[in-house]
Amino acid sequence: MIVTVTLNAALDDTYEVADARFGEVNRVAAVYRRPGGKGVNVARVLHGLGHEVVATGLAGGAAGRQIVEGLASFGVPASFSPVAAESRRTVTVVGRDATTSGGDATMFCEPGPTVTVPEWNTFVGRYEALTRDAAVVVLSGSLPPGVPPDAYAALTRLAPGPVVLDADGEALRLGAAGRPDVVKPNAGELARASGTGDTAAGIRALRAAGAGAVVVSLGPDGVLAGTPDGVLRAALDRPVPGNPTGAGDALVAALAAGLAGGLPWPERLRRAVALAACAVRSPVAGEIDAGRLPALLSRVTLRTEEDHAARAHD
Amino acid sequence: MIVTVTLNAALDDTYEVADARFGEVNRVAAVYRRPGGKGVNVARVLHGLGHEVVATGLAGGAAGRQIVEGLASFGVPASFSPVAAESRRTVTVVGRDATTSGGDATMFCEPGPTVTVPEWNTFVGRYEALTRDAAVVVLSGSLPPGVPPDAYAALTRLAPGPVVLDADGEALRLGAAGRPDVVKPNAGELARASGTGDTAAGIRALRAAGAGAVVVSLGPDGVLAGTPDGVLRAALDRPVPGNPTGAGDALVAALAAGLAGGLPWPERLRRAVALAACAVRSPVAGEIDAGRLPALLSRVTLRTEEDHAARAHD
Repeated sequence: MIVTVTLNAALDDTYEVADARFGEVNRVAAVYRRPGGKGVNVARVLHGLGHEVVATGLAGGAAGRQIVEGLASFGVPASFSPVAAESRRTVTVVGRDATTSGGDATMFCEPGPTVTVPEWNTFVGRYEALTRDAAVVVLSGSLPPGVPPDAYAALTRLAPGPVVLDADGEALRLGAAGRPDVVKPNAGELARASGTGDTAAGIRALRAAGAGAVVVSLGPDGVLAGTPDGVLRAALDRPVPGNPTGAGDALVAALAAGLAGGLPWPERLRRAVALAACAVRSPVAGEIDAGRLPALLSRVTLRTEEDHAARAHD
Repeated sequence: MIVTVTLNAALDDTYEVADARFGEVNRVAAVYRRPGGKGVNVARVLHGLGHEVVATGLAGGAAGRQIVEGLASFGVPASFSPVAAESRRTVTVVGRDATTSGGDATMFCEPGPTVTVPEWNTFVGRYEALTRDAAVVVLSGSLPPGVPPDAYAALTRLAPGPVVLDADGEALRLGAAGRPDVVKPNAGELARASGTGDTAAGIRALRAAGAGAVVVSLGPDGVLAGTPDGVLRAALDRPVPGNPTGAGDALVAALAAGLAGGLPWPERLRRAVALAACAVRSPVAGEIDAGRLPALLSRVTLRTEEDHAARAHD
């Protein structure tokens, strides 16, 4: 069983607005409301692929109820710990067709709920019980106010098995000290956490800080991964068109599934790149059309950085 | 007791965003959430002035619960009829200071919930019971999908006492046929309902269609009213600075209170203009600082259109 943790879960609204204008009253043509937050999206992807998963985290107020009800409506097992404050909402304004507007969307993100010390302690107790039999634990996303900045390090140490961490800034930098098996930053997150804009150097820095492996997502260029089996690069033969929202969460879902299945790193990365591409082809974060996977898998090229360097000098 | 009806109640969110940008991710610095919809604002103003009021209408889903809970938190008696669909939300994005951004705010309005025939019939039964002892009934705002387009005419006919109607377009045009005692359009609403851009002609048209009196709100120019006591104009000596949001609802609240108190038309209009100005000085719709009323009342000038015409030829 895989446990995903979303400490700053969100209720994600997408507003379809034809020709939105600042400073004016805009009529929303259609509203799409779904539970969100990175870990929630990871859980939905894993559930969609038939993996046994439980989504946990913190949820509060009306938005928190809607997040939990939303997961239930998708059939995703969830066990969230309550907070008194209202969980955040995000509002994403897109053009007439929400399915093709990933690029030019306008997003408004509410601040997360302020979490009290007793609420945090209650969650940690629930987390320890939930993860007792977990094959893999996934820690994803931002930390709401009140949660300790080194929360991910603490949760990693408490996990009985392997941990995948997907975070940014201080949460990632301090979290790496907990020795998670895999961290999955994008290029910007890697630079912020490692203090260097050089991807290879950033990977070395995060591994030195405690991360077992560092898988850097590079969008259409696939992934560059520093692993115990060497530095590997995986990418599609050519980028797929679509909406990149949620691709990173699909990548994390594949890395967690690969860990749970004990797949070797090369195969793990091939599946991660293919599943991320599958998410790009899907309009909504957390939803993928698994039927596209085999064709996409066959299009993933994998090489070690040495090979890559050699080719670069052809 | 005054009953306010809000068939398309809303949960109004105001997002403070410093330097919001389209096509980007915007962090919301602060969220202000309150129950809304014109009739809800009218009820809050009347309650704030010490009038006995009950807010009714249709509310559904999580937003509907938050609307009812919000009214309770303000101490405003409410008796809303449930609908299965989710009540609409509005999101208004303002600059760093929500209290001064009435003008350049960007608003996103969700579509209203689709109301079923049984839900509408249930509401009408509740409305008849609630209004049995009402001194005045206020009908405000848009009609959600599924509600009959002539709903306001039907509700006006069912009311045992005087009715104030504040609506737009077809809802106002068809509503006037129910013979409401007062309708309160702004200039644009009057033009859309009467088919003429000439204010005096529009007033005559709406009175011919069934409205007992027509009070046209003209923003900083006060009101022009076609009443059984003649055509009257009331305005402040000079406009007040502030946020015009909710001024129309305050105007309606004053007209309802004036009807309930049996005030003559000139005094009714003086108080309406003063209360609207009071709302302009207040940052949030539905909230007014009554302490400002006496000073504002002393600044209202009232004249019949004849006087006005004469002055115009000085």
